[in-house]
Amino acid sequence: MKTMEWKDNRLVLIDQTKLPDELSYFTCKTYEDVIIAIKTMVVRGAPAIGVAAAFGMALGYLDGENLENVGKKLKASRPTAVNLFWAVDRILISDNPLEEAKKMYIEDIDTNLAIGRYGAEIIEKGDTILTHCNAGALACVDYGTALGVVRTAHHQDKDIKVICDETRPRGQGARLSVWEMQHEGIPVKLIPDVASGYLMMTHKINKVVIGADRVAFDGIVNKVGSFLVALAAKRFHIPFYVAAPLSTFDHEISIYDTEIEERSPDEVLYYGGCRIAPKNTEVINPAFDIVPDDLITGIITEKGIIHPKKFKEFFINLK
Amino acid sequence: MKTMEWKDNRLVLIDQTKLPDELSYFTCKTYEDVIIAIKTMVVRGAPAIGVAAAFGMALGYLDGENLENVGKKLKASRPTAVNLFWAVDRILISDNPLEEAKKMYIEDIDTNLAIGRYGAEIIEKGDTILTHCNAGALACVDYGTALGVVRTAHHQDKDIKVICDETRPRGQGARLSVWEMQHEGIPVKLIPDVASGYLMMTHKINKVVIGADRVAFDGIVNKVGSFLVALAAKRFHIPFYVAAPLSTFDHEISIYDTEIEERSPDEVLYYGGCRIAPKNTEVINPAFDIVPDDLITGIITEKGIIHPKKFKEFFINLK
Repeated sequence: MKTMEWKDNRLVLIDQTKLPDELSYFTCKTYEDVIIAIKTMVVRGAPAIGVAAAFGMALGYLDGENLENVGKKLKASRPTAVNLFWAVDRILISDNPLEEAKKMYIEDIDTNLAIGRYGAEIIEKGDTILTHCNAGALACVDYGTALGVVRTAHHQDKDIKVICDETRPRGQGARLSVWEMQHEGIPVKLIPDVASGYLMMTHKINKVVIGADRVAFDGIVNKVGSFLVALAAKRFHIPFYVAAPLSTFDHEISIYDTEIEERSPDEVLYYGGCRIAPKNTEVINPAFDIVPDDLITGIITEKGIIHPKKFKEFFINLK
Repeated sequence: MKTMEWKDNRLVLIDQTKLPDELSYFTCKTYEDVIIAIKTMVVRGAPAIGVAAAFGMALGYLDGENLENVGKKLKASRPTAVNLFWAVDRILISDNPLEEAKKMYIEDIDTNLAIGRYGAEIIEKGDTILTHCNAGALACVDYGTALGVVRTAHHQDKDIKVICDETRPRGQGARLSVWEMQHEGIPVKLIPDVASGYLMMTHKINKVVIGADRVAFDGIVNKVGSFLVALAAKRFHIPFYVAAPLSTFDHEISIYDTEIEERSPDEVLYYGGCRIAPKNTEVINPAFDIVPDDLITGIITEKGIIHPKKFKEFFINLK
């Protein structure tokens, strides 16, 4: 099962707003449909947004649209994930947008398999791994970054267990990561976001692996709540790993210069259709967190694991 | 408006499970009704549970029950809050359980007013105060501990603002603290629990005041999530205060020897009646957190503010 497929010149997406209760699809016939899908989180997760945006560019190209213009609109659909910008720019300089998008689709799967292989090296037999949000197959084309690491370790019979943070306000952990782990047959438990500190203190968690929406030279940007998890992990000397493809890297800028998207109050005021606070309550709803590099043990990429203080060295060696 | 009232030999409680949408009452005719009210969180908050349990003992006394027996059952209704034990024991050695319960009711209000006066001293003009869970009027007979401090500072025209953590899984912040602040006319915003770290990092919060279910010699026990808030406050040098009456103190034991209540998975799987994860998902749902004393700036009591490292000195001076 893939998060998206290109079929008859259309982009078919799993509608992630309907999971876990309903597996249904959202078909994009135009680049505008792709923008709607990204904004409403039918498709979410930095790598998946990138590839969906590439197909959005391809749809624009097939419709004879001005691609500079389409690219600008796609980039404005969600400001924080860097893959979106990377994908649009890559299509803009390609000769054949559709073929380039298809190439990126295949690359995303290969990248995640490589991340899984490198990442599984840091997973020990019997580990209980905490993850926050969903950096799984549903956040990519397939397999996943953080959950790709978990999947590989599971296939290596490392006898691992997973604990998923619920991930308020949208519940991507409760709805998507739990669902993915159950389908894969990996033992999984759900906790409210507030509980990770207590579970680390009582030795119930011994590794953290999460994804990233942006990797900057001084840390990462990821789903709101990641910072608190990282602080608790640091306190108890629990390794805190970030799994992210190099397309998520933006090592010229600082995490503090990243635009942090603020989303609708209704995401907090309602949950699964139920209102959970007085009507007209004012809300602050940042979608992302900043995690400084002193809290990160390592970043798992498709080219190996990097210590966050050794970015420069890593990129010189890559060349 | 008081959280509870003694009327015609019955204990009438605001049904807090129905707030904020419905202000209704739950009448306890027997001590068993009080146990149900405590277990189902019709009444919650350490000081309120204590006074409700005292009236539960009074109901048992009026019905000619064996009070030792009633006390045992009341103590078993929720294991973590120390006030419950304190209240039952105080009734057991009193000559007139009903008069003693009424005295404790009045004392609770006076205590909170004193906590408010001491606490307001640490609040500066223009502070934005984060609170977690509900240590408000609804957690006591009236006025509140942490929110009592907020109320007093507001009445002193300190131009304060309040940010309430939602407080998953039961949403006491979203449902109760937000509602109390709105009724009092104090500017309040709601955030998901995951967002407090980001808001501290971006200088949107400059003080934390929370309650406690138990104060031990090496820290406090309070609603799950308190530890993560405390860690973030420490990181950014934001003062982290705990407001708690001396009846919450149990300074002979360690926080690590406190029984942490584990509550029903359904509290996490459902929110406001909506299911938010796949059916039959396994859940870990601890109700409380442990906050070690190195993360606490001070404990605001009805006798003054104590630095957590100076407990012994404080209690010697009290005598």
